[in-house]
Amino acid sequence: MDKRIEVGVLGATGMVGQQFIQQLVGHPWFELCWLAASERSEGKRYADATPWRLETPIPDAIAERTVVSCTPGVGPRLVFSALDASVAGELEQAFADAGHFVLSNARNHRMDPLVPLLVPEVNADHLGLLRAQAKRSGKGAIVTNPNCSTIVLSMALAPLRDFGLRACLVSTMQAVSGAGYPGVPSLDVLGNVIPFISGEEEKLETETRKILGTFAADAVEPHPLRVSAHTNRVPVVDGHTETVSVALDEKPGLAALRAAIDGFAGKPQQLRLPSAPERPLLYLDQPNRPQPRFDAWRGRGMTVSVGRLRPCAVLDWKFVALGHNTVRGAAGASVLNAELMQAEGLLD
Amino acid sequence: MDKRIEVGVLGATGMVGQQFIQQLVGHPWFELCWLAASERSEGKRYADATPWRLETPIPDAIAERTVVSCTPGVGPRLVFSALDASVAGELEQAFADAGHFVLSNARNHRMDPLVPLLVPEVNADHLGLLRAQAKRSGKGAIVTNPNCSTIVLSMALAPLRDFGLRACLVSTMQAVSGAGYPGVPSLDVLGNVIPFISGEEEKLETETRKILGTFAADAVEPHPLRVSAHTNRVPVVDGHTETVSVALDEKPGLAALRAAIDGFAGKPQQLRLPSAPERPLLYLDQPNRPQPRFDAWRGRGMTVSVGRLRPCAVLDWKFVALGHNTVRGAAGASVLNAELMQAEGLLD
Amino acid sequence: MDKRIEVGVLGATGMVGQQFIQQLVGHPWFELCWLAASERSEGKRYADATPWRLETPIPDAIAERTVVSCTPGVGPRLVFSALDASVAGELEQAFADAGHFVLSNARNHRMDPLVPLLVPEVNADHLGLLRAQAKRSGKGAIVTNPNCSTIVLSMALAPLRDFGLRACLVSTMQAVSGAGYPGVPSLDVLGNVIPFISGEEEKLETETRKILGTFAADAVEPHPLRVSAHTNRVPVVDGHTETVSVALDEKPGLAALRAAIDGFAGKPQQLRLPSAPERPLLYLDQPNRPQPRFDAWRGRGMTVSVGRLRPCAVLDWKFVALGHNTVRGAAGASVLNAELMQAEGLLD
Amino acid sequence: MDKRIEVGVLGATGMVGQQFIQQLVGHPWFELCWLAASERSEGKRYADATPWRLETPIPDAIAERTVVSCTPGVGPRLVFSALDASVAGELEQAFADAGHFVLSNARNHRMDPLVPLLVPEVNADHLGLLRAQAKRSGKGAIVTNPNCSTIVLSMALAPLRDFGLRACLVSTMQAVSGAGYPGVPSLDVLGNVIPFISGEEEKLETETRKILGTFAADAVEPHPLRVSAHTNRVPVVDGHTETVSVALDEKPGLAALRAAIDGFAGKPQQLRLPSAPERPLLYLDQPNRPQPRFDAWRGRGMTVSVGRLRPCAVLDWKFVALGHNTVRGAAGASVLNAELMQAEGLLD
Repeated sequence: MDKRIEVGVLGATGMVGQQFIQQLVGHPWFELCWLAASERSEGKRYADATPWRLETPIPDAIAERTVVSCTPGVGPRLVFSALDASVAGELEQAFADAGHFVLSNARNHRMDPLVPLLVPEVNADHLGLLRAQAKRSGKGAIVTNPNCSTIVLSMALAPLRDFGLRACLVSTMQAVSGAGYPGVPSLDVLGNVIPFISGEEEKLETETRKILGTFAADAVEPHPLRVSAHTNRVPVVDGHTETVSVALDEKPGLAALRAAIDGFAGKPQQLRLPSAPERPLLYLDQPNRPQPRFDAWRGRGMTVSVGRLRPCAVLDWKFVALGHNTVRGAAGASVLNAELMQAEGLLD
Repeated sequence: MDKRIEVGVLGATGMVGQQFIQQLVGHPWFELCWLAASERSEGKRYADATPWRLETPIPDAIAERTVVSCTPGVGPRLVFSALDASVAGELEQAFADAGHFVLSNARNHRMDPLVPLLVPEVNADHLGLLRAQAKRSGKGAIVTNPNCSTIVLSMALAPLRDFGLRACLVSTMQAVSGAGYPGVPSLDVLGNVIPFISGEEEKLETETRKILGTFAADAVEPHPLRVSAHTNRVPVVDGHTETVSVALDEKPGLAALRAAIDGFAGKPQQLRLPSAPERPLLYLDQPNRPQPRFDAWRGRGMTVSVGRLRPCAVLDWKFVALGHNTVRGAAGASVLNAELMQAEGLLD
Repeated sequence: MDKRIEVGVLGATGMVGQQFIQQLVGHPWFELCWLAASERSEGKRYADATPWRLETPIPDAIAERTVVSCTPGVGPRLVFSALDASVAGELEQAFADAGHFVLSNARNHRMDPLVPLLVPEVNADHLGLLRAQAKRSGKGAIVTNPNCSTIVLSMALAPLRDFGLRACLVSTMQAVSGAGYPGVPSLDVLGNVIPFISGEEEKLETETRKILGTFAADAVEPHPLRVSAHTNRVPVVDGHTETVSVALDEKPGLAALRAAIDGFAGKPQQLRLPSAPERPLLYLDQPNRPQPRFDAWRGRGMTVSVGRLRPCAVLDWKFVALGHNTVRGAAGASVLNAELMQAEGLLD
Repeated sequence: MDKRIEVGVLGATGMVGQQFIQQLVGHPWFELCWLAASERSEGKRYADATPWRLETPIPDAIAERTVVSCTPGVGPRLVFSALDASVAGELEQAFADAGHFVLSNARNHRMDPLVPLLVPEVNADHLGLLRAQAKRSGKGAIVTNPNCSTIVLSMALAPLRDFGLRACLVSTMQAVSGAGYPGVPSLDVLGNVIPFISGEEEKLETETRKILGTFAADAVEPHPLRVSAHTNRVPVVDGHTETVSVALDEKPGLAALRAAIDGFAGKPQQLRLPSAPERPLLYLDQPNRPQPRFDAWRGRGMTVSVGRLRPCAVLDWKFVALGHNTVRGAAGASVLNAELMQAEGLLD
């Protein structure tokens, strides 16, 4: 590639915006040159406008940059959206209408029938929706990544589609970083479990079916599996752990399932996309893994770890899945989406 | 009652032994007068022999008592067993053979067909096994309480038996106190989830069926429901939280299920046993409850809290249950068992 | 006492207001009959107006009460103030001017030369300031309790005044409940230490000197000791732990210091005030105590625990002190202050 | 450098041994080719002999290596010792007597007058002790690194020696990884503070004086400053935080002190040693830093962060210091020591 592609971040000063910056600084294809946020931050030095909360320091080049307003039509053609759901709906559409490619982590457009809910290893063909979307939005487009707990589940379920995946019961143990900042008060979660996350179970139950769905005739037909979710917040910083039971129409043995998980790969691995992990799913043989503190960062946060695959006395099989909620589950997911679009020539 | 009944504790210096002492000090019916432990502690002042780890101080009267050895035939007829599973099997049987009533928290005899696995609100009639056990063990007897995560599940499932309970999928988030002392290293569990507890899933899957089973013809027929468990350790001190999905043959509505939960009570409530909570199951209407730090101590640790009852897209209904693992899940359970036996005239 | 005294709470819906309610429900002398809060809550049922966050459930009688506005001159003569510092300054003065006794936990009036900064075991005679205050405020009065970390330190230092207390270096490890609700974000404090609490070091350094000061000629002369504080937030729910080194002009031995700590008591113990702990200071001999999870609730949260008294190579002696920050350090402190005023006939 | 130097690890299967491996794999000068441990592990594949507990996976090349016994005279000349203190005393001496250079993290020989207690930025000249040691041990030698909390303090104090450092009062908040594995039980430390670490205060008070001492006439004269320490365990995984007050004979202003901290560097920086951080001390200007979760890994865990420098009302100045206890405070320290020795030609 001769020259890096200029990219921007919408909502750059928030927690997700910071994570986008962390993923984009030093990126081999993309050059982060445009940081947009609300009017409150406009004109300020980024380091002054942002309460940086990540465990790695704010990159020097970024710290000195001036924050601009979120004005459609201004800035690079490719923008990553870390906008809050309260404003993302209209603003992202306005950017798309103005010709931008909007790679969004917000929930607003995920279930829009014309918008890909993309996980490159799972449903790269869903980018075909962009043809239909182009009729509505012209030269721009919106592409979304799933909710953080959904992406972990979807990736773990993806290789099971070949076995007649019929139902899935999942119970999550989610990290506090998934709630943004200030997010969960320490008085609520220290030494505690909160067995409720607003809207989360609905996202797991609907987004998963779209992600695993079939693209045909310029539309995505949701996968017919039934999903039921219990979602819980636990005192963990990063990494969502999920216990999963599945019902399968076919009756594969353990070896066939392991082979499907071990062999799982997709376009990002074939195309050697910069953010693609060597192994999108990694099966861990130790009996007590995966664990968030030890396994969330595998594949630089882009690998979903799986373990404890064993028969389920109620459905057919059960296992544990784990992924990094702010990397594979948010900013890293959107960056991988953009890489796929670039490799497929869709950003031209 | 004219006079309090003398009782003892086997394994009094360990963590569970301490919990028995906490439950028994000041008990209106039982007088704790005998503390037995391994030879290492024999002859020592209890406070010197015991690394007391509870959040309430060691009771003064107990601190000064001398620890004796675990010798069958010596000590009170009624003994609570906090013995470790490595020695409980033979030693409890020896005490029973010597004429003691052994109320045990150990796992060894729980699945013995002649030994009640007792939850007084759920299966008080299982004490009928003592007739058959008497043929084997003479005047003594062993009565066990379930594993800590199992008792929470069993109590929450008990009122659902009337609706044709067919299957149950449970995922637990268990407190570190369930692992005893020193138990779980802080390096393993701080800011982490450990998705494995040795032997725990098997206990949930087998003990639950016996507890909910039917007593007939001097035997317990296990309940036919299928149980599948995922068990996890989380950084919580006390209180096991469980997300539960159930399949029911009948199709009750929400109101019928709530009525069954709200109206659930048993012998302990009828007999007003000293340790019986007013409400063995308490439904919490707040959308984010129950939570271990806020709800584990309800009913002085003897109430199991339930919440979030809602339809399940895979099975029929789903909910959250929570109980105090060292009170209702261990020492408090055994003490309630003894109270039931006393009230039923079985300790004479 | 024939009849209980009616009392109210200003700012009843906040976290500190909830703690006042917890302390006052069932109080033998005071009857909580008036709950005042901001206009937003006015007219609402208390349970609806309040996001109750305490580990004990909201008392039934309180839940049904209607919240009123904070109007000076209305409500009981004795009011406890849980007002936020942003409004407490003017509003408390207005209540005092209208004839109320305001027992305040807010910081605003603590350093007012006419307002007692009262710790009944330490400086009961500072209530003499009320004579001077009466000249300013008429029949009403403001009496304050110290900041939560200050009261722990002040009580631990009080018996050392007899040995020529000259300097004190303290480093705190403070619980998150001291920051109110929502308070400290979990992302900031999980698995972390925050070595800064805004304004806290200044309070420790100035309030301590006033508390330990001498009342003479209708004024309090601050104690001459120098105090230097390091304040830190740690992932603990309740209980502030403080490591303390002191310089003393006299050179007492260990036995004399222990005797001073063990024998420490004051007016609350002499008068057997309802909230007074039997032992305001309790020395723990175990080498690794006091600890917040195990010792904060001693004396129903009103005892300050002390341990590890040993020589200091830089100053003279060093030790660890611990107190419950929301009981002895906030609501319980104000209630004890009111009890002392009642016992001394100052509420007539 | 033509060829890498072969090195080994004594006690390779324990927690500290694992940390040595993590530091040494991929080292540009040293090639780890010898893993020694107790007889229990002898002959086993390293991955089978070791319960690997680090957050990064076990390196592949190491996993397959065979563990050998700790036999003096066998193995590389340069060995890093992660031996437990119970055996390190004799065994390290035996290795030194057999001609090995033993770079030890154990406490046993630290205070030996002939053994350098080395912090390369602080006291590189203490390596001069090796001449005297050679008279005792022949061609081998023992060089030690300090205790984990001591090294953080010593580095923060080092630039203050120029201002007549007279006394230091330190209170620590130490991570659980400092206690090894299994180390601190979760039941002891979850949501808690333990204000005692066995032997730790003595190490801080004696080792610091030796580290900051003066090498002259083939001996180290301890620094005359008095040190008094309070040591505490807090629920943090990695990173020791220390609040420090110091008395100085000279009376520098803030600017002079900041300049001393900012300009602090030593031999490792001059010689550009591979493990040397660019900044051994890094002053953080934010008012609430350093914090373990955000700052422990600065300089790849080899930088000590300092913040909140301000006047102390009892001594002269106070500040907060933080360092990574298992990198700069253990294995990384020993590796830096070996790098210094190599660069100075002492390993020939």
